[in-house]
Amino acid sequence: MEAYTTRAESIMQRIQALAAISEDSQGITRTFGTPAFLAGSALVQSWLEAAGLATRVDSIGNVRGRLASPRPGAKIFVIASHIDTVVNAGKFDGPLGVLLGLDLLEQLVQQQTELPFHIELIAFSDEEGCRFHTTYLGSKVVAGSFDTSLLQKPDASGITLAEALAAMGADAQQLTHDAIPANEWLGYFEAHIEQGPVLYERHIPVALVTAIAGQQRVELVFTGMAGHAGTVPMVMRQDALCCAAEVVLAVEQFGRKFQQDLVATVGKLDIRYAASNVIPGQVVCTLDLRSADEKRLTWAHQQLHEQVQAIAHLRNITLAWNLIQQTAPVACDGNLNHLLARAIANSGYPVVPLVSGAGHDAVPISAVAPATMLFVRCFKGISHNPLEDVELADLAAALHVAERFLSELITHHS
Amino acid sequence: MEAYTTRAESIMQRIQALAAISEDSQGITRTFGTPAFLAGSALVQSWLEAAGLATRVDSIGNVRGRLASPRPGAKIFVIASHIDTVVNAGKFDGPLGVLLGLDLLEQLVQQQTELPFHIELIAFSDEEGCRFHTTYLGSKVVAGSFDTSLLQKPDASGITLAEALAAMGADAQQLTHDAIPANEWLGYFEAHIEQGPVLYERHIPVALVTAIAGQQRVELVFTGMAGHAGTVPMVMRQDALCCAAEVVLAVEQFGRKFQQDLVATVGKLDIRYAASNVIPGQVVCTLDLRSADEKRLTWAHQQLHEQVQAIAHLRNITLAWNLIQQTAPVACDGNLNHLLARAIANSGYPVVPLVSGAGHDAVPISAVAPATMLFVRCFKGISHNPLEDVELADLAAALHVAERFLSELITHHS
Repeated sequence: MEAYTTRAESIMQRIQALAAISEDSQGITRTFGTPAFLAGSALVQSWLEAAGLATRVDSIGNVRGRLASPRPGAKIFVIASHIDTVVNAGKFDGPLGVLLGLDLLEQLVQQQTELPFHIELIAFSDEEGCRFHTTYLGSKVVAGSFDTSLLQKPDASGITLAEALAAMGADAQQLTHDAIPANEWLGYFEAHIEQGPVLYERHIPVALVTAIAGQQRVELVFTGMAGHAGTVPMVMRQDALCCAAEVVLAVEQFGRKFQQDLVATVGKLDIRYAASNVIPGQVVCTLDLRSADEKRLTWAHQQLHEQVQAIAHLRNITLAWNLIQQTAPVACDGNLNHLLARAIANSGYPVVPLVSGAGHDAVPISAVAPATMLFVRCFKGISHNPLEDVELADLAAALHVAERFLSELITHHS
Repeated sequence: MEAYTTRAESIMQRIQALAAISEDSQGITRTFGTPAFLAGSALVQSWLEAAGLATRVDSIGNVRGRLASPRPGAKIFVIASHIDTVVNAGKFDGPLGVLLGLDLLEQLVQQQTELPFHIELIAFSDEEGCRFHTTYLGSKVVAGSFDTSLLQKPDASGITLAEALAAMGADAQQLTHDAIPANEWLGYFEAHIEQGPVLYERHIPVALVTAIAGQQRVELVFTGMAGHAGTVPMVMRQDALCCAAEVVLAVEQFGRKFQQDLVATVGKLDIRYAASNVIPGQVVCTLDLRSADEKRLTWAHQQLHEQVQAIAHLRNITLAWNLIQQTAPVACDGNLNHLLARAIANSGYPVVPLVSGAGHDAVPISAVAPATMLFVRCFKGISHNPLEDVELADLAAALHVAERFLSELITHHS
C-alpha cells in the first residue's frame, strides 16, 4: 500500500495544481471555455504529453491522450472524467478521475506493458453544463450523440456555443468526427467522488456503481386565494403554502419508504407575491424524483401525482403538475462491474454496490459502450462546495482497486 | 332608505373621482407625498371647503375640516380615515370613511344643527406607510405620538420624510402643534371596509369593531444540511424545508383551534440557495400571529415556540426564533360601541361584533381618545387590490347607521 500512498500523494498534488487555476481568486471555478478552463486544460494536456501519451484537444475541448495497442483492429478502452467545474466548486469532482487515470497510464508506460486494446484517457470539457445549461457536452461528442442544434445556444452573455468553440480555436465541423465509433469501443471506466454520504457514514473507502439513477423533474403550481393575514379567519382560507407544505411532507414520507431505491426531493419553493402579512395565494415548487429502477420511477411519479391531487382537492387548491424533464436510469455493465467488484474484494475492501443519484459522463457513454464506475468516499458527502474533500488513504485505495481492475482487464483480453 | 341610496351614490361618485387620481395610469396608487397624493388631497380639501367646513392641511399633510360648536370649552369628535393608498390599491380602503364622514357633515351643515361638540373630519395622509415603511404617520401626529426621529427616515429613493414634508410645503416645526390635546378629545369614529370575508360570507352589510388585534411577527430560521438531491439517502437528510413544512402545518392546525380569536400565518418562506436538485439546507420564514386578546397572543406565541422547537429538535434542525415586531391589541371604547351597536340594531341590521385583524388609524388614536369603528362589507373580503369593491346598498346601510350613531351622540351630549 505504501506505493499507492506515494502515488496518491502525487495525484493529490496535481489535483491541487489544477484547483489553483480558477476564474476567481477565492474559490475554484472553471466553467467550459473560459480562460481559466483553457489554462487548466493546457496543464492537463502537458501532463498527458509528459506521460508519453499521444495527445490532442478535440473539437469540443476534450483533452485526449492515447496509449496505443500494437494489435491490428484493437478496440478502445476509455478512462475518463471531466475537468470543468460548477461555480465555487470543490477540487475533486471530475479531476480525481482524470488524474487517477493518468497515474494508471504512467505506470503502464513505465512498465512498457503491451496492451491488447488502446487506452484513451479523456478529460471531458463539459460535464457540469454550467455555462450553456446543458450537461455532458464533452462525453456526448465522444459517444456520437452530440446534438448540433446546441451550437446556437447562448450563454448568459449571449455568446453561442459555436462562438465559444471558435474562440477556443476548436473546429465545430469536426464534432461528428471526434466520436469513437460504436464498434471500436471496448468499454469505459470512471472514478469519481461519491458526492453523497453513504461511504462516509459506513466508513468504507470505495463503492461499485451499479447504475445511475433516472430522474423525473416536475414543477408543481398550487393556486389558492391570497388574503390579508389578519382579516381572513383560518377556516375560510385557501392557503397555497399550507397545501404545498402537506405535499412536501407527503413526498418525504413517500421517499422514506424506500432505502436507496428512490429519492424524492422538493428543492425549490416560491410563494408568489409573498409578504409576511399576506396569506400565500400561489406556490410554485419542484419535485425531483430519482431511481435506478425505471418502472419504480414511473410508478412513483404516478403515485405521488395522485397523492398530491388528493391533497390539493381536499384543500380546494388548484394544482398544475408539469413534467419538466426526465432521463431514464442507466445500468452499469454487468461484466465490467463483475471485474471491478472482484478488484475491490481482492484489494481487501468490502464491495458496496451503490446507485449514483447524480448524473455522470457514463450516462451518454453507456449508450454506445459497456461502462463501469468506482465511487470514492468524500468528506460527509459534501460536493459542489469548497468543503469537498477526499482523504489520501481513500485516493490510494481507489488507485489500488483501479489498477487491479485495469490489470485484470488487460490479462482478460491478452 | 331611498335618501341614503341617493347620498351613497354621491359618495360613490366622489370615491370614483378620487380613485381616478393616481401615480400610474392603470391602477390606483397614491402613496404619501407624491404629486398624485397631493392632487387627491387638494380635491378632498376642495370638497370639505365647499361643504362649508373650516379647512386646512396640517404639517403631516392631513386634510382637516372643522364644523365648530358654539359652546365654550366644547370637546372635539373626530370622524376620519385615510386617503393614501398601497401600490395598485382598491378605491374604498380609506376614502370610504373620509367621504362618508363628509356626507354626514354636509347634512349637519344643511340642517344647521347646533353641535354640542366640535366635529373634525380628517383625511389622514399616511396610514398604509408604503413610502417610508412606517404606518399611521397622519393619525400619530393628531394623537400626539409622532416620533420625530422618523423625519430622518429615507424612502426608497433616499428622500427623507423631512425632505418630503418640505417638498409638500409642510412645516415640520408644527408637527407637535397639530396634535389634538388629550383633554380636548370627545371621541373618534371611523368607517372602513372590512378587508376580510366574514360579512361577505354571512350576507350582512356592516359590523361593529370591538377591537383591533395585536400582532406578533416572528422570523424563523431553520438550518439543516444542504446536499445533492440524488446522492443523499432519505434517512440521512437534514432537510430544512421538510422541517419548515411541518411547522407551517402545525401553525395552521394551531390557528384552526380558534374561531376568530386568533389567526396564525406563514406568509413568507425562502429557501437559501434553492435549486431543484439540492436538498434545502436553510429556510427562513415568517410567522404572523394576531389576536384581540393580549394574554392569548402571548400564550400562543409561547405555545408555538415550544411546538416549533420540538419539531426542529426531532429533525436535528437548528432553529432561530426572532421576534421581529409586536403590537398590543386595542379595544374599541365600550360606550361608543354601545351607541354604535344600538344604531346598527335600530337601523334594522344584525349586530355582528368583529375583531379587526388589520391595523387602522384607530390604533394610535385610541391611546388618547375613545374610538369606535364601523366595518362595511366588501366583495369577497378582497382589498389592497383593484378588485376591491363595495355595493351601493352597503354604503347606504353604513351611512344610515353612521348618521343614526352621530345623531344619537349629538342628542346624548346636548
